[in-house]
Amino acid sequence: MIIAIGFYPGFTALDAIGPYEVLTYLPYYVPGAQVVLCAELTGIIDDQYHLVHLGIDTTFADVPRPDVVLVPGSPIAGRYAAEGHAIVDWIRDAHPYTTWTTSVCTGALLLGAAGLLKGLPATTHWDAYDELASYGAQPTEQRVVTAGRIVTGAGVSAGIDLALTLAGKIAGPDVAQAIQLSIEYDPHPPFDSGAPSKAPQPIYELASAALDGK
Amino acid sequence: MIIAIGFYPGFTALDAIGPYEVLTYLPYYVPGAQVVLCAELTGIIDDQYHLVHLGIDTTFADVPRPDVVLVPGSPIAGRYAAEGHAIVDWIRDAHPYTTWTTSVCTGALLLGAAGLLKGLPATTHWDAYDELASYGAQPTEQRVVTAGRIVTGAGVSAGIDLALTLAGKIAGPDVAQAIQLSIEYDPHPPFDSGAPSKAPQPIYELASAALDGK
Repeated sequence: MIIAIGFYPGFTALDAIGPYEVLTYLPYYVPGAQVVLCAELTGIIDDQYHLVHLGIDTTFADVPRPDVVLVPGSPIAGRYAAEGHAIVDWIRDAHPYTTWTTSVCTGALLLGAAGLLKGLPATTHWDAYDELASYGAQPTEQRVVTAGRIVTGAGVSAGIDLALTLAGKIAGPDVAQAIQLSIEYDPHPPFDSGAPSKAPQPIYELASAALDGK
Repeated sequence: MIIAIGFYPGFTALDAIGPYEVLTYLPYYVPGAQVVLCAELTGIIDDQYHLVHLGIDTTFADVPRPDVVLVPGSPIAGRYAAEGHAIVDWIRDAHPYTTWTTSVCTGALLLGAAGLLKGLPATTHWDAYDELASYGAQPTEQRVVTAGRIVTGAGVSAGIDLALTLAGKIAGPDVAQAIQLSIEYDPHPPFDSGAPSKAPQPIYELASAALDGK
């Protein structure tokens, strides 16, 4: 079982690394499971801040038929979705053969651009619901949305919840719970403003200003 | 303000990238704040699975006096702590000048090896409490522990809670809440086994077996 995380320049690091940390436990429990980090080209690609320099040694062409596809988001994902990008082509070509095709945050826009979300419920970062709808999806505010074999997660940190959900589907709830314990995922946020419905208006505006700057 | 995340070969990716995703918002709100990824040497270092290849262009020697130090954990951190490692020297030399010295998961063992935790309450991954105590710390099961200007977080995913706590201390609760909203950190784990006290015994054993294999 090949679990391929698809990267592109400007990716949001936690979108990918949250699920990565969960999914890299699967080979302990599922014989033959293998996590692969891939991108259009080999070499170094940077995250959105140009601070994380990630070395890629596997291309999309090397893994045309992964069993699981996971696509992280990014402030630039919307542009790649609108203008076309190698990762969109990879998603489109791989999807007919996957067991699970998944995204975190605005990675859903890339699934949308690949034509996968038409008429389906899906989620993304709260700041991108309208953009997601433009690809024919029905945006929902759930943390993790399963529609057939497509699973989408909300913004950035939701990738951990998505990957545990996915681990449960792949290896069963016992393994998923063991992974949750291994990464000590017993979240205690010091505040409770992680969703637009929970954040006071001034906090929402403070966050939106930072996001607009990206 | 320099916020330095210290890396070493074999690091656990989420330990570092969880806090990274939170702390990289600080420059939007705190003029002069800057996040730096550093290690003993420049070049590529791998995470514990040799799947994440991280390009480092800043050495410990380049940032001897960061305002904030953050040290991720790893299955190999215990060995580096016991045998000595450049990151332990960096922590020891930097700490007298920091505003906050912090760790995630078994990164606390490296703080311990640097002599920082003697007589202090601190936390680490649940699997490493005894090892932490061997450095004179008082292990606690809290998610995030503040002792003076040392802040330690529990295992792996706790780095997000730690970094939001830290963001609150540095930039105030409004900014921390705005960051929480930006990364949509409204966790909904699909299971509730993220701490030893919550996981049934068979799940605990399943997790321990995987951790022992690391």
